[in-house]
Amino acid sequence: MKKTMMAAVVRGFGEPLQIEQVPIPVPGRGEVLIKLLASGVCHTDVHAADGDWPVKPALPFIPGHEGVGRIAAIGADVEGYQLGDMVGVAWLHDACGRCEHCHGGWETLCESQHNSGYNVDGTYAECVIGRADYLARLPNDCDPVLMAPVLCAGVTTYKGIKETEVRPGQWLAISGIGGLGHVAVQYAKAMGLRVVALDVADEKLQLATRLGADVAIRADSKDAVDRVLQATEGGAHGVLVTAVSPAAFGQALAMARRHGTVSLVGLPPGGFETPIFDVVLKRLTIRGSIVGTRLDLQEAVAFAVQGKVKPTVHSIGLHQINEVFRDLKAGKVDGRVVIDMR
Amino acid sequence: MKKTMMAAVVRGFGEPLQIEQVPIPVPGRGEVLIKLLASGVCHTDVHAADGDWPVKPALPFIPGHEGVGRIAAIGADVEGYQLGDMVGVAWLHDACGRCEHCHGGWETLCESQHNSGYNVDGTYAECVIGRADYLARLPNDCDPVLMAPVLCAGVTTYKGIKETEVRPGQWLAISGIGGLGHVAVQYAKAMGLRVVALDVADEKLQLATRLGADVAIRADSKDAVDRVLQATEGGAHGVLVTAVSPAAFGQALAMARRHGTVSLVGLPPGGFETPIFDVVLKRLTIRGSIVGTRLDLQEAVAFAVQGKVKPTVHSIGLHQINEVFRDLKAGKVDGRVVIDMR
Amino acid sequence: MKKTMMAAVVRGFGEPLQIEQVPIPVPGRGEVLIKLLASGVCHTDVHAADGDWPVKPALPFIPGHEGVGRIAAIGADVEGYQLGDMVGVAWLHDACGRCEHCHGGWETLCESQHNSGYNVDGTYAECVIGRADYLARLPNDCDPVLMAPVLCAGVTTYKGIKETEVRPGQWLAISGIGGLGHVAVQYAKAMGLRVVALDVADEKLQLATRLGADVAIRADSKDAVDRVLQATEGGAHGVLVTAVSPAAFGQALAMARRHGTVSLVGLPPGGFETPIFDVVLKRLTIRGSIVGTRLDLQEAVAFAVQGKVKPTVHSIGLHQINEVFRDLKAGKVDGRVVIDMR
Amino acid sequence: MKKTMMAAVVRGFGEPLQIEQVPIPVPGRGEVLIKLLASGVCHTDVHAADGDWPVKPALPFIPGHEGVGRIAAIGADVEGYQLGDMVGVAWLHDACGRCEHCHGGWETLCESQHNSGYNVDGTYAECVIGRADYLARLPNDCDPVLMAPVLCAGVTTYKGIKETEVRPGQWLAISGIGGLGHVAVQYAKAMGLRVVALDVADEKLQLATRLGADVAIRADSKDAVDRVLQATEGGAHGVLVTAVSPAAFGQALAMARRHGTVSLVGLPPGGFETPIFDVVLKRLTIRGSIVGTRLDLQEAVAFAVQGKVKPTVHSIGLHQINEVFRDLKAGKVDGRVVIDMR
Repeated sequence: MKKTMMAAVVRGFGEPLQIEQVPIPVPGRGEVLIKLLASGVCHTDVHAADGDWPVKPALPFIPGHEGVGRIAAIGADVEGYQLGDMVGVAWLHDACGRCEHCHGGWETLCESQHNSGYNVDGTYAECVIGRADYLARLPNDCDPVLMAPVLCAGVTTYKGIKETEVRPGQWLAISGIGGLGHVAVQYAKAMGLRVVALDVADEKLQLATRLGADVAIRADSKDAVDRVLQATEGGAHGVLVTAVSPAAFGQALAMARRHGTVSLVGLPPGGFETPIFDVVLKRLTIRGSIVGTRLDLQEAVAFAVQGKVKPTVHSIGLHQINEVFRDLKAGKVDGRVVIDMR
Repeated sequence: MKKTMMAAVVRGFGEPLQIEQVPIPVPGRGEVLIKLLASGVCHTDVHAADGDWPVKPALPFIPGHEGVGRIAAIGADVEGYQLGDMVGVAWLHDACGRCEHCHGGWETLCESQHNSGYNVDGTYAECVIGRADYLARLPNDCDPVLMAPVLCAGVTTYKGIKETEVRPGQWLAISGIGGLGHVAVQYAKAMGLRVVALDVADEKLQLATRLGADVAIRADSKDAVDRVLQATEGGAHGVLVTAVSPAAFGQALAMARRHGTVSLVGLPPGGFETPIFDVVLKRLTIRGSIVGTRLDLQEAVAFAVQGKVKPTVHSIGLHQINEVFRDLKAGKVDGRVVIDMR
Repeated sequence: MKKTMMAAVVRGFGEPLQIEQVPIPVPGRGEVLIKLLASGVCHTDVHAADGDWPVKPALPFIPGHEGVGRIAAIGADVEGYQLGDMVGVAWLHDACGRCEHCHGGWETLCESQHNSGYNVDGTYAECVIGRADYLARLPNDCDPVLMAPVLCAGVTTYKGIKETEVRPGQWLAISGIGGLGHVAVQYAKAMGLRVVALDVADEKLQLATRLGADVAIRADSKDAVDRVLQATEGGAHGVLVTAVSPAAFGQALAMARRHGTVSLVGLPPGGFETPIFDVVLKRLTIRGSIVGTRLDLQEAVAFAVQGKVKPTVHSIGLHQINEVFRDLKAGKVDGRVVIDMR
Repeated sequence: MKKTMMAAVVRGFGEPLQIEQVPIPVPGRGEVLIKLLASGVCHTDVHAADGDWPVKPALPFIPGHEGVGRIAAIGADVEGYQLGDMVGVAWLHDACGRCEHCHGGWETLCESQHNSGYNVDGTYAECVIGRADYLARLPNDCDPVLMAPVLCAGVTTYKGIKETEVRPGQWLAISGIGGLGHVAVQYAKAMGLRVVALDVADEKLQLATRLGADVAIRADSKDAVDRVLQATEGGAHGVLVTAVSPAAFGQALAMARRHGTVSLVGLPPGGFETPIFDVVLKRLTIRGSIVGTRLDLQEAVAFAVQGKVKPTVHSIGLHQINEVFRDLKAGKVDGRVVIDMR
């Protein structure tokens, strides 16, 4: 059996990833080794590799947290999995299982959590270690490349929509139809919502319309807010902001219906100005949403398995990762890029 | 019967109120005339008289929206009231009764609402017109001076606490122990919450402690946030911000527990900077809350009637209103000032 | 202008309805006169005509509460309507507007409500009086015959589904695919739910499948419960019982997932035996649901307007009503019967 | 070190418990050995010893699931506990940690759970094995005898009250003021509720009043329901039924306010008749509630630690257990019996 595997390794923040041979890790107690078939590329991976956030990963490390593969080895005390099972590795690598958040079904808030491709090695490699109790269960016949983005882009937008508390038949505005937003449109329609899509690019609005958006509006048009208010007869019950620029955020508050909720699912640096008068008089709710729990993840996967959500993907090889990072930084990526490892 | 009454009238924005005789109004259909016994003085009245907000009242007008009195005349088609009944006049003078907000039990969000002392004449007068369907019902033997602040300060903080969705036994931090905050402490304790009070003045913290706050912390101490996190073992489940300064707001987010809610109940001009990273990673909810519906109001009154909430009040005569406005602007008012009209 | 109209009148409980000329009523304050185009026939009308329930209607009266028509005359103080507007008359003719239920957005629980075709004259007539504030607003170009059943069968099942608190992607079992159930299947699918349909008739199961049910199971098969548990991998998150026979109710509890909710929307006489052990150990919720509020109604209508819900209807003339009542009592009606009055 | 301990052992269903020496168990992985200081006696233990329920315990076994003690030995892989720590052993001995219920913060619904004193040995002994991740954490200076009943009677009623979804200021009716009910009154008051207590014994009503109940009514008086409706001005928002006799259940539905919830927390054999008409027209919710999760338990303990809940207890020695079982079956026990093992 092989002892080493190819991986894309961050050896210095802001430097190109090194494509190199590294030892195949051995699963410890409660862990499995997964032979990867596909790994999505998320903007978070760029932030990780650049050391953008306050708490940086320890160098060196392997990024990636949208991994789909089959179980290749099983550590001690793992229950419920067999060799060859198709599973997914997501951002939440594991959590403590003992704090109030873990006990309450909110393990994504656990202060002792580990994150794939950040403080444990991730999925830009031939193999990855997963914690058995935190894996997504996937059908053995799923398409790994199409499923990979569900593990982060999918669950993040799905949860973000849930967090708006919008009900079937109500209006959801989705601000930004990129890697996250184009998946969000599909979840929203599968959830029985009416959708307004907003973006600054016509082709993204066309994509949104093809995916079922009821209304598509240029976010940079002067009357964008007015058109949303008119189309929704009073404002969107929920707004999902995938493009958390200060401008997008201000616009999101303005297009929200009274009593509405604006849900944020991105992690750009900095803050945004919140207008007190509007938030109070319109009784708006602003809520942050971070990926999703294991139940959210399993639900997000189920929509994909039923064929209701199908990300637009571009396949690459592992050696192309640095090019893709450049494109991501330049905002030149449509849909989602997935490393095909088959 | 008298044809005129004393009233404090705003004849020019930013000018002293004129204490003068004006005609006693006649109740129209669905309305009653109320002989006032007491009227609380709210900071909103100062904003109204100064024309501070985007949509200004039409001049001249009588401010005031914390009125307690007895029904002195009944207009056509009023059901359920008799002469002499004790009632309260609050900020929400009336709403359309036909929009989705009115139908859904959120008449405070009605876009056609009228507000007492703003776009209809208010309670700084011997009499006031009230819309029968929007009055608070009060016990005939209640103390008008103690009840008056319940009609705005009371219901506003009570609703603001409800909007944090904090449950009995959980921690609520109350930022600012002034006219609103000292009432909020009492509601919070009556609701079974554990309370951290924050203010920059020692005497207000002492008041909070007398009213039942479990912990009282100087908001301007360097380790204020750390002390809240420690006292609450991880942060407050809810934070009620009555002092919506930018500093208070930033502090509120920092002292919120993961999954917590920060509720805003003031209307200062301007905005505040919201840190995206914290809001998303800690899954915080920021929510504006504006006064309360008729049900909220009746609930807020019930707590007071049961003796669980008793505002700290200073009685004045109507002719002293301009002095009180000066003191309010200077931040020199403790508790709540009430015009005693008996 | 005509002074009389044709109507089907109940002159004695249990007797055939009299098809006769009666005076056209005149709308009072807040009321409108509606020239009817269609009226659905609901099993409740049979109960009303037979005097089945504890509080009986006063004789004589005109049944019917699924009316679609155009405004033909407008009483005093009506706002927001014009002659010719298309509107719907539902079971909730009006409510007091002043009790805690009305204030809280639950006017369907008002103890002073009037009900169309029960304690005010209903829609089995050429014209009917409606209370303006309680009408459903309908598009001027809607098909009256298809819209009529939405006003009761539609909103009742839509609300009943909401009351299960089932979320998009979860399983709803619908017990009974008759006049209510076949509409419920369509609402459930439009709301993003996965649906198990149960009935004792194969053709009804086939209808359910055509309407989108994911699984259809004979309710009288021995392994019905087991098959539901298997198809839903542990039980349905919600169960809507339209066929409230004791057997259907017991089965509903057995096929509910742990933590699930069983919602009841029928009004048969009598009761059902509830097994304590199961309800407690599985933390089941049993909830009654009665028609829907004005907001529910408007939402239910919106789904129909968007083409997502289309009842199966059989048109009749007003003079055929006694035949239809006989068929309803014999359980021989598929879908919904609608009196076409055009 | 001792190798054996005294225990009360069930060797045959319906037979007296044997007080005998048995080996002290050895904690396995994730387990601790607890030296018990007190163990409450719950009616469930009688059902267990008599083999009353469908799935019986395997013989022989030691009953008991309200244990308070100190950690005396620690198995492998236990984190967060030290020798001497004060902990509580409750009904939920452990759960799988992997199913949707465990992931969703509802481990009490786990189908693979073990229950203390039922399918694992319980607390009628000098020592007991506890699963570290499922213990209640208790202050080292708490009174073991007063704390023991909190571990089942406390959390069961606390959770049952939560499950009524009653808010502070609203009315809760508590039916049955025995071992569960007298604790429920205290939780309800600490949660800011207004309480109606019902029982058939005057001394229990007097106890309820001493513990803070606002109203106390003989459940067997002819006008019991009317008096509740009058005291609560329309019915109790929530009803907690600790005395689940068919009569108590019917009464509970009759005294519930429209839109109210009736919560069941007992496990008597059999069922009850549910009147469809009332449940539907009044939109009632009937909900079973089974003990509480670890978070519920920790919250229930916190109220007791703050001195807000203090069960009425009678201390006995382990050898008196058979007498107490006889008294429990005869309904002759007031408050809660606790085995004092110090």
